[in-house]
Amino acid sequence: MSESTRVHNFCAGPCTLPVPVLEEIRDELLDFHGTGMSIIEASHRASAYDAVHMSALADFRLLADVPDDFVILFLQGGASLQFAQVPMNLLADGETAGYVNTGTWGKKALGDALRVSPVYEAWSDATGAFDHMPASEEIEIRDGSRYIHLTSNETIGGIRFAELPTLRVPTVVDMSSDFLSRPINWSAHDLVYGGAQKNLGPAGLAVVVVRRDRLSHHGRSLASYLDYTTHEASNSMANTPPMFAIYVMGKVLRWMRAEGGLGIFENRAAERSSLVYNAVDESNGWYTCPVDEASRSLMNIVFRLPTEELEKRFVAEADQAGMVNLEGHRSVGGIRASVYNALPLASVHTLIDFMEQFRSANS
Amino acid sequence: MSESTRVHNFCAGPCTLPVPVLEEIRDELLDFHGTGMSIIEASHRASAYDAVHMSALADFRLLADVPDDFVILFLQGGASLQFAQVPMNLLADGETAGYVNTGTWGKKALGDALRVSPVYEAWSDATGAFDHMPASEEIEIRDGSRYIHLTSNETIGGIRFAELPTLRVPTVVDMSSDFLSRPINWSAHDLVYGGAQKNLGPAGLAVVVVRRDRLSHHGRSLASYLDYTTHEASNSMANTPPMFAIYVMGKVLRWMRAEGGLGIFENRAAERSSLVYNAVDESNGWYTCPVDEASRSLMNIVFRLPTEELEKRFVAEADQAGMVNLEGHRSVGGIRASVYNALPLASVHTLIDFMEQFRSANS
Repeated sequence: MSESTRVHNFCAGPCTLPVPVLEEIRDELLDFHGTGMSIIEASHRASAYDAVHMSALADFRLLADVPDDFVILFLQGGASLQFAQVPMNLLADGETAGYVNTGTWGKKALGDALRVSPVYEAWSDATGAFDHMPASEEIEIRDGSRYIHLTSNETIGGIRFAELPTLRVPTVVDMSSDFLSRPINWSAHDLVYGGAQKNLGPAGLAVVVVRRDRLSHHGRSLASYLDYTTHEASNSMANTPPMFAIYVMGKVLRWMRAEGGLGIFENRAAERSSLVYNAVDESNGWYTCPVDEASRSLMNIVFRLPTEELEKRFVAEADQAGMVNLEGHRSVGGIRASVYNALPLASVHTLIDFMEQFRSANS
Repeated sequence: MSESTRVHNFCAGPCTLPVPVLEEIRDELLDFHGTGMSIIEASHRASAYDAVHMSALADFRLLADVPDDFVILFLQGGASLQFAQVPMNLLADGETAGYVNTGTWGKKALGDALRVSPVYEAWSDATGAFDHMPASEEIEIRDGSRYIHLTSNETIGGIRFAELPTLRVPTVVDMSSDFLSRPINWSAHDLVYGGAQKNLGPAGLAVVVVRRDRLSHHGRSLASYLDYTTHEASNSMANTPPMFAIYVMGKVLRWMRAEGGLGIFENRAAERSSLVYNAVDESNGWYTCPVDEASRSLMNIVFRLPTEELEKRFVAEADQAGMVNLEGHRSVGGIRASVYNALPLASVHTLIDFMEQFRSANS
């Protein structure tokens, strides 16, 4: 399709994928690499798919600079299932971990972990605003804590850890909404995980990267799908994997490598988000960002207009102009512009031009 | 692509999908219904995806004639995760259920259930051949059994229940490999489930159909993803669903309706499998089927040649002639021709012609 008919997609996820990736999928949809069948008809035991799968694993390792002592798993159930699987696999009976409650996702992770193990809340925003991330020294680390769980970026609140805290115990980090948008300091983590459907590919795939020597620790009777060792032993092919999502993510990872790697995407995230935050900050208070400046997300930019009525019109007029999914999450209202890895810079420029016009027309 | 370049795909799963479905996916891959984005870039909260999702739910209900007192869930993790999720959700502490061990899949279901609850083996093939299904009266039903678990079709052994047993307790049935290839007698079941990647669509999606009044029974502390009620309350959109797999399955279900519904596919399964079994039976013992005649699968047809050497050549020459994935499972050897819903009758005719030629040339 021509770029001109393509919308600017600011969805919090799933979201925009690179056009060259979509074109490749389309072009090979009925005949994958001369196999005479679609990739979605291929056996997961066939060599054609095996190559796709192993390349995706290798490219993820390369891009994220994953050390050899970490295992990469491709799983189903999204980050949501990881909220349960992480404590199931990393905590033995009687062990604990601290969960940092930074907003909707941190709270969900804590809630599900509590159904599995006696974990504790290691921090919460006492004001209830959830407009900032804690400093390292504010995070409570109780004796016997195996890990501290963090959410690197909160999609709904629009906050992120500008730098992830390095603590005296390992961290486990839900990176769903800023996965592979910046380098990962592996020495601090025992496990990082995320749903693919924001920066990496379509829905239906979670990537879990876990320190190998943390596997087999739990001593529980875990069903095989729920045990990381099942997937580690089989390169995530113990049962039929979510093949299409892995195939698409593989293409996104290759595209990211061709674009120049993680450093490029870190720079682009800074550039895209700065453009929007500047448009907010330079509006003389007409647009306002409810988030603490040091915690501003580079992926999900939330801002408000003078009235809810204006916010509704902003979303509707933007939509008419081809900028979609700008409404804030229903739980917080306002505007949210998600600017993930694959969002073209042109989409950001279109948005800030529109912000300027809308303000002129309505102030 | 032209039919002539398309292979005949006899894979045990994932497998052939209808060409018109693949063509639709390709044609709308870059712009789904005028939204200016791909379906794999769409928000699961957007109306465009919502319509896809709700249609798939409705079409499944219509095709399988699912009564109102059953809930249809779209989940991730395949049938493998259901091996754990079923007992987690259907059994309270101290309750039990019987598992009928009819082969590889029945055994896996039992093994995982045992990690969750004190269930028991309700039948196993004492000969170790796993070449037939038990009669109803052979299945042990211990006091206090909440359900008996069955595998309707064993893909590796190539056996099926010609008629699923109706027992004095409800049955739970793994229908992964013959889902929607015949009508379902809902009055006998509390739950049926299956991975989509054989008869219904691509990998990455499991469909669970459960009697509504069996939900909320377990009384356990279950993580939200693992609790069926989470998905029931949200039409399986509590977290981001496996959208692409649901979208494709929706198209397959519409195609099945347009072809004439479940009765047509039941007839086609009988026709396809008869053609291959007849080619075996009429070979004067050159081809042999190791399966009890009454238990022969209509989906996965296993047969042997006089020697393993001939079997290797059969697979290789068939592959050269455009018939792929005919090797039996590595655990049992031989030949396996899987003939799922979307396999064209022409593929079956091509296979039986080849069987005839190969036998003439080698006997």
